[in-house]
Amino acid sequence: MNEDVGDAAQTTSPVAIDGASPYGAGALFQILRDGRHRTRAELAAETGLARSTVTQRVDALLMSNLIGPADKGASTGGRPPTRFAFNRAARIVLAADIGATHVRAAVTDLTGGILAEAREEIAVEAGPEKVLGWVDTAGRELIAEAGRTLDDLLGVGVGLPGPVEHSTGRPVNPPIMPGWDGFDVQGYLHERFHAIVLADNDVNIMALGEHFTRWREAPHLMFIKVATGIGCGLISDHRLHRGAQGAAGDLGHIQLPRGSDVPCRCGNTGCLEAVASGAAIAAQLRESGIEARSSRDVVAWARSGSVQALQLIRQAGRDLGDVLAAAVSLFNPSVIVIGGSLAQAGDHLIAGVREAVYRRSLPLATQHLRIVRAETDDRDGIVGAAVMVIDHALSAAQVDKLVTPPR
Amino acid sequence: MNEDVGDAAQTTSPVAIDGASPYGAGALFQILRDGRHRTRAELAAETGLARSTVTQRVDALLMSNLIGPADKGASTGGRPPTRFAFNRAARIVLAADIGATHVRAAVTDLTGGILAEAREEIAVEAGPEKVLGWVDTAGRELIAEAGRTLDDLLGVGVGLPGPVEHSTGRPVNPPIMPGWDGFDVQGYLHERFHAIVLADNDVNIMALGEHFTRWREAPHLMFIKVATGIGCGLISDHRLHRGAQGAAGDLGHIQLPRGSDVPCRCGNTGCLEAVASGAAIAAQLRESGIEARSSRDVVAWARSGSVQALQLIRQAGRDLGDVLAAAVSLFNPSVIVIGGSLAQAGDHLIAGVREAVYRRSLPLATQHLRIVRAETDDRDGIVGAAVMVIDHALSAAQVDKLVTPPR
Repeated sequence: MNEDVGDAAQTTSPVAIDGASPYGAGALFQILRDGRHRTRAELAAETGLARSTVTQRVDALLMSNLIGPADKGASTGGRPPTRFAFNRAARIVLAADIGATHVRAAVTDLTGGILAEAREEIAVEAGPEKVLGWVDTAGRELIAEAGRTLDDLLGVGVGLPGPVEHSTGRPVNPPIMPGWDGFDVQGYLHERFHAIVLADNDVNIMALGEHFTRWREAPHLMFIKVATGIGCGLISDHRLHRGAQGAAGDLGHIQLPRGSDVPCRCGNTGCLEAVASGAAIAAQLRESGIEARSSRDVVAWARSGSVQALQLIRQAGRDLGDVLAAAVSLFNPSVIVIGGSLAQAGDHLIAGVREAVYRRSLPLATQHLRIVRAETDDRDGIVGAAVMVIDHALSAAQVDKLVTPPR
Repeated sequence: MNEDVGDAAQTTSPVAIDGASPYGAGALFQILRDGRHRTRAELAAETGLARSTVTQRVDALLMSNLIGPADKGASTGGRPPTRFAFNRAARIVLAADIGATHVRAAVTDLTGGILAEAREEIAVEAGPEKVLGWVDTAGRELIAEAGRTLDDLLGVGVGLPGPVEHSTGRPVNPPIMPGWDGFDVQGYLHERFHAIVLADNDVNIMALGEHFTRWREAPHLMFIKVATGIGCGLISDHRLHRGAQGAAGDLGHIQLPRGSDVPCRCGNTGCLEAVASGAAIAAQLRESGIEARSSRDVVAWARSGSVQALQLIRQAGRDLGDVLAAAVSLFNPSVIVIGGSLAQAGDHLIAGVREAVYRRSLPLATQHLRIVRAETDDRDGIVGAAVMVIDHALSAAQVDKLVTPPR
């Protein structure tokens, strides 16, 4: 069969290998990320790598501090430490979750554990200089509060309340973010923090945060945010599905099956967001003579027992459910998590969603489907922004670049 | 920082590692799959593996025949061969694409290259024993025709025209497949071929085939089949997105935005399939007194220039486009490939699709979106079924199991 050897095209789909050597220090680090302690000899046995190779890679990882000696007191004697494990305190991450009306920032360790956090009422409309300026100042304070320095910073993760081109971190025609269109968020923060900066829309980072925090066993998850607008983050096979332009999950401008001639700010009519968002419900309340300017007001009315507010939220849930029924047929998730301020108005929204999804989807796709409310502690965005940075910066390829080769 | 070392939870999403050692023979084989020739020394240098480890793994792969000596004449002397490469002729794959009215079977090499093929008119309604019986008989003949034996068989891939639970290979309530519900396709074929059997619905394997054959550079692709029914296969980040129950891509029963009270065989009304499938258009033609029993008849009328048939196909394209506009907002693909018999009726279907998608989707998602017709050579299903088996059976984990450890 020699004539057939060697001229074969690659048979698998060309999954990006991300430039990492499958046998480099970064790859060895991935093994150690499970937190178990290992000796050099165990690593050599486990991998088949030459002892000299293991020693070299372990030394590089030790110098980077990404792994540390795991033996009690081993570092006090003259003998080199013999067992190693992932050091989650090796670096810190600065995470910022920018919402329509407020900003959160936090410093986390390398497992997304929050070390210090802050929150400020700033409207995103105030513009990038004002909002990111606060992230700059608060970020430095939080790093100090955590007892660390800028040298420890692995990277900065930012969530923004509008479409973001993930590869460049620039907002793209963000409807509620005047002054942000095309703004170089990465450049602005990189100049100040001298570290990797990653930005994505708030819904994607909330999806990452929910998946990481509560649904790690669910391979396919949809996170829906219903607030001033409506958006969705998709997890496919445990990974964020961003789509070709990073525009995946744009649920708000899908046309409602029930038909509607309500004009939408996107220029079309009958979009989901035009009838079922917090802003749309507030407008409907105003038409009934009830004072409501924002989704927060809608939630307040619902909590005070306003029948009109509750009915409108229930109907918004049904409309959302009609669109989600199509999304369920297409994407077949195992979990749908409903978050955003409107989800905090009790169970009316989610009851409407369930009603429509279970009525309209095929039995196979809904037999094990769970539709749940997001936990209300509101940290999904922060945790997701941190996880986005950690997953990227601790990948094999990035660790290969990070580690200093031993002299 | 010793107190923080070693108790870290895993920070990344738990992507299934599939049981493979990242340093085993299977992992080494993945490097060689690019087709380049390498010596043992080059492999040791490239990987950092101990020379003894490389020799052991290369010997195992040589014994399995998955790699072969690449030096001209090196195998004739007494000296062991020094350079190795992927041997695409090492094994063969039997692929079967079962349609509503006919079955295709082919034998391929390990790059999906077709070595022998056959086609037979058998209705899937004839039942699993009849249809799979033909696959059994024809498969043996094709293997012989390719000059190979059952011992060479890596696995069998099967596409079926209905929902399939991928993990078990069993059809689940398949609407046009009486007698197939829950039938053990894997068991039936495994008993006859004694090899891995994988089954999936025809649309998923066509998506795999299109992606593999013509769109390997497109990370996110939607393949739409419009024939008797309507279905969709999703490629996310170069991989098939099957969803939680393997039910992803069930486009046919999404509710039309324009509203429709046409009853669907699923029990709901206004499903896409009830108005825009080949069967639905045939019914609409009959209502106008035009004889049409199947999507094939619809295509025949369109090709003969029937204005009514062309108008109905164009409208079907618009209806499909309205549903795809929502799918584009959700999934943000870079390519939509339209296939199935109705796509062969000229450009009317795809013109309607484009019209609706570009009218209804947001600019960001459509600025680089390509909507194209599937190539008509009709081999997507066969190639996809083969690729499904190859991607699975030549993965690092499966190769680890496949290779015989050297004595």
